[in-house]
Amino acid sequence: MDVNILLFPDFETLDAFGPAEVLGSIDEYRLRFISLGGGIVTSKQGVPVLTEALSEVDYSAILLIPGGFGTRTLVNDSKFISKVKELASQCKYCLTVCTGSALLAKTGLLDGRKATSNKRSFEWVKSVNSKVKWIGSARWVIDGKYYTSSGVSAGMDMTLGFVSDKLGEEIAKKTANRMEYVWNSDKYKDLFAYKG
Amino acid sequence: MDVNILLFPDFETLDAFGPAEVLGSIDEYRLRFISLGGGIVTSKQGVPVLTEALSEVDYSAILLIPGGFGTRTLVNDSKFISKVKELASQCKYCLTVCTGSALLAKTGLLDGRKATSNKRSFEWVKSVNSKVKWIGSARWVIDGKYYTSSGVSAGMDMTLGFVSDKLGEEIAKKTANRMEYVWNSDKYKDLFAYKG
Repeated sequence: MDVNILLFPDFETLDAFGPAEVLGSIDEYRLRFISLGGGIVTSKQGVPVLTEALSEVDYSAILLIPGGFGTRTLVNDSKFISKVKELASQCKYCLTVCTGSALLAKTGLLDGRKATSNKRSFEWVKSVNSKVKWIGSARWVIDGKYYTSSGVSAGMDMTLGFVSDKLGEEIAKKTANRMEYVWNSDKYKDLFAYKG
Repeated sequence: MDVNILLFPDFETLDAFGPAEVLGSIDEYRLRFISLGGGIVTSKQGVPVLTEALSEVDYSAILLIPGGFGTRTLVNDSKFISKVKELASQCKYCLTVCTGSALLAKTGLLDGRKATSNKRSFEWVKSVNSKVKWIGSARWVIDGKYYTSSGVSAGMDMTLGFVSDKLGEEIAKKTANRMEYVWNSDKYKDLFAYKG
């Protein structure tokens, strides 16, 4: 199954490539990097990635939306948000990392649903859409087909959790061990919880 | 200071982008992605990255060498290894992740020095150069200007350790917290140690 990873200028590097490491190491999944117009898209930390345009994409695949500095302006870009809404409403599963959940929240698709985000940007994320049931203490949150994670490295824990849910815990553990990664497998264990 | 991240076909995604997340978030460092011929280089997990050719590069910068499946053939590519030797001998600091240390070992620059690598590929890595003092239990190892880490996610712990050594522990901790990352800051604590 394809995993469409939606990139935009100033996305957060590890938000995209932590989950990419996990899913790209499992035979069942094939990564595709996509953006509104295609071509090179560069992360906040300076990683230039070649992307395909949305016209090339199977919308029914898994969708991953990273967060990062770029989300701050993109939540107010109605053309971008309408494309996120198309992708997210048609995808099989939608995973967001960090402030990627702010982009998803802006579409309205999370209204009435539980979700989380980066705890350092939590006030801002809540201000984007107050109809979402924002959870201040969770490594990641699942509501229907939507998986939303806390900041940056939390995306790896959530993605391993997604793999565990879909393919079994053994494959998730094996993937974490191969990465020599200490997986925080308890989505309620959040050492960086929002205290505001 | 520039950080030259040397990419090659089938490099391991997180080996490169874990450290990139850490160093690219700190103002003192600027990331440059480089390869022998420049152009798009794709990771084992399918991430296509735009790179600069070696001719564009300041060799006196920090050098980061990821590991991954591609190293298995590249250790026997004398042209590639001679370029690694040029880069590593002229750089200010050389950081390797996972089997990236096998590429560095092949140059001879680690002869008589302590180093580590991915514990699941440890037998193979040792076979590449037996003159290296391979350490089977370490999250990362420092010998002179050479920092070598264990597998995949260990690259983030090592890079935060490098930041701590060069810029101070507070900046390293702040960077880890910003990433909501539980930093294994003890280089001797290795939950994935080699038991062979």
